[in-house]
Amino acid sequence: MTSHFSLSRRHFMGGALSAAAFNALSHSAHAQAEATQHQPGIVTPQQPYIYFLTLDLPSDQKADLIALMKQWSEAATALMAGQARPDFPSPHEVASLKGAHLTLTFGFGPSIFLHDGKDRYGLLSRRPAALADLPHFNGDQLIAARSGGDLCIQSCADDPEAAFYAVRVLIHLAYGRVEPRWSQHGFLPHYSKTHTPRNLMGFKDGTINPNNHSPQEMRDIVWADPTACPWMAGGSYLVARQIRIALEHWDNMNVPFQEQTMGRQKYSGAPIGGTREHQPLTLKETDKDGNLLTAETAHARLAAPEENGGAQMLRRAYSYNNGLSYIAERWPPWRQGNEFDVGLLFLAYQKDPRTAFTKLFEKMAKFDMMNQFTTHIGSALFACPGIAPGRYVGATLLEE
Amino acid sequence: MTSHFSLSRRHFMGGALSAAAFNALSHSAHAQAEATQHQPGIVTPQQPYIYFLTLDLPSDQKADLIALMKQWSEAATALMAGQARPDFPSPHEVASLKGAHLTLTFGFGPSIFLHDGKDRYGLLSRRPAALADLPHFNGDQLIAARSGGDLCIQSCADDPEAAFYAVRVLIHLAYGRVEPRWSQHGFLPHYSKTHTPRNLMGFKDGTINPNNHSPQEMRDIVWADPTACPWMAGGSYLVARQIRIALEHWDNMNVPFQEQTMGRQKYSGAPIGGTREHQPLTLKETDKDGNLLTAETAHARLAAPEENGGAQMLRRAYSYNNGLSYIAERWPPWRQGNEFDVGLLFLAYQKDPRTAFTKLFEKMAKFDMMNQFTTHIGSALFACPGIAPGRYVGATLLEE
Repeated sequence: MTSHFSLSRRHFMGGALSAAAFNALSHSAHAQAEATQHQPGIVTPQQPYIYFLTLDLPSDQKADLIALMKQWSEAATALMAGQARPDFPSPHEVASLKGAHLTLTFGFGPSIFLHDGKDRYGLLSRRPAALADLPHFNGDQLIAARSGGDLCIQSCADDPEAAFYAVRVLIHLAYGRVEPRWSQHGFLPHYSKTHTPRNLMGFKDGTINPNNHSPQEMRDIVWADPTACPWMAGGSYLVARQIRIALEHWDNMNVPFQEQTMGRQKYSGAPIGGTREHQPLTLKETDKDGNLLTAETAHARLAAPEENGGAQMLRRAYSYNNGLSYIAERWPPWRQGNEFDVGLLFLAYQKDPRTAFTKLFEKMAKFDMMNQFTTHIGSALFACPGIAPGRYVGATLLEE
Repeated sequence: MTSHFSLSRRHFMGGALSAAAFNALSHSAHAQAEATQHQPGIVTPQQPYIYFLTLDLPSDQKADLIALMKQWSEAATALMAGQARPDFPSPHEVASLKGAHLTLTFGFGPSIFLHDGKDRYGLLSRRPAALADLPHFNGDQLIAARSGGDLCIQSCADDPEAAFYAVRVLIHLAYGRVEPRWSQHGFLPHYSKTHTPRNLMGFKDGTINPNNHSPQEMRDIVWADPTACPWMAGGSYLVARQIRIALEHWDNMNVPFQEQTMGRQKYSGAPIGGTREHQPLTLKETDKDGNLLTAETAHARLAAPEENGGAQMLRRAYSYNNGLSYIAERWPPWRQGNEFDVGLLFLAYQKDPRTAFTKLFEKMAKFDMMNQFTTHIGSALFACPGIAPGRYVGATLLEE
């Protein structure tokens, strides 16, 4: 389902023709949905490394935004193909991109549509209803400097330097025309193509993810509804949350307590009382005293679709490690000091955040036992449109 | 030359016997030098990943420091052997250490000997002359929170998570008894066992490093003089500097200018005017107009032993990537904003920092063209002693 941008330089330079073809096809939302391609890096099997960056735009001119997205789409095509260009810094490093399965995914934040109360690009009428600002969740401790952004770049690869290098090139090409806002690089601990990755808490993470090889599941869960917002045909909505994990505190808990908190067994990933990772959660089973095997407040229960009216999203989370930070802990003995600044860059793609992330997390933010060990410190939301054949990313939004 | 700690748990528990054997051997500095083992991670061929952490000790009791170093030496032995213990968090992760070539190296900072003017552990008389505080260098912009430390742990491995996991275990075991001060994780970009690694500036880095397979070179350059300080027999002095690189600024320079600044060619690593990476620098050669091929202020010239009375050290530097930070640039157009927070965790081992790092860097800090793009923001110094057979790291210092 996922395809890399097919824009060769030649195709791109022939944009006028492609636009005509595109317009002919876009007479209905359905036709447009058929004609657009998905951006890579959404249902692409998760590569082990990410460099994620958001940025703000100093210019209020829509033409500047269009020029930027054209330039980036073209450069992204070259980078994903491992092609060096004279305007790339350290162009010999492009060689390292070959075989790294680099994907570059771009998103548009709510501030593209409304910034300090101003419709700066004249796009407000095109803002998708699904791109509603996220509500304040219980326990949120959001840092402005780690939240939001006019645009995002998600760069994923099999090699951490390839993921960073691609973003470095894009920022270099846009020197003086963009203001980087926040970034986070991440990784999948103990990555393997054949096993569910573990997070830094030592548990398998992503067991219940939908099947990204199933077009039907992806249509139901990931891809935006083109009738609700035609320019988002073939696109998806990205929720990004930076979630700090109090690792020293977690490491002081014994494994049975950790398992009760998670609602799964640590080594096998099996449900409590189960034997296999991929068997159904033990949501109704009780022990001999009549107590639920999987606690009411266990993380896995609160995240389960069957407990949330079927709400689902495609998780693409990465662990992060930012060294040490001075932390004031939120639990006894309320320790203050330099602690590991580690956690999860939670990324999730979905058809509509209002009925997926927001619905799921509103309950979890209140009841999840895991909240003793996790704090949401950053939040952002992006619309990642599909690509009309031969056009740049964002053409469907920026050119009617 | 390098050996992993040979202390098995059994050997360690039999420390009294080993101590007797050790004392019998230590009747002369020379014999002690023969009897001690080098810590791993010094002349060990550089693994591609590091997690480096320094920490302070809240206790003024020498017995607490001894207990800590005993516990850590024992745990380090298990970790380097890939052996899980029930007191390790997420002990199943130990499996990932196997084959990761983990090395753990410990050092003692100047504040162990003199802390706020106080000889807190009664060790001041044993402070090596070579462990003199580093002077203030031209251009230093040192941040206290990224400098110094009573102790350091250098954890290196073929896998970044293995390097971090080992430190996580040591910090867990010492919970409440140590105060982490600063940490930095790093990597060797485009690592290969057969090529000199490049740094983030795109240049090969480490071409002139001494041969860590030559015992003679290591004796001359790396290992401390046991006659000057018997407890440092088999040990070495570590200088750690955190060097920020202004990558966006660097990426805007053309390659010929970058090469003049570095004093080497970017792709090949060859000297200016040369053809091969490992040929001698062109320090005296001139062009047809009589100008030196390698500028007086080129980085490679200023770092060359032949320009510094033979001064040398064993570099063990790693690139780092800390995302974005708000930076006020030091050069025109004095840009302020969020920039890549990347650079080099410069680590160098040497016989005596006064005649190695300090001698070399005093001149470079004043004249190196590279200073337009680099800023030293952190600094630390550690004595990393050898290990008496069967004893814990630091026994030669802490027990007379």
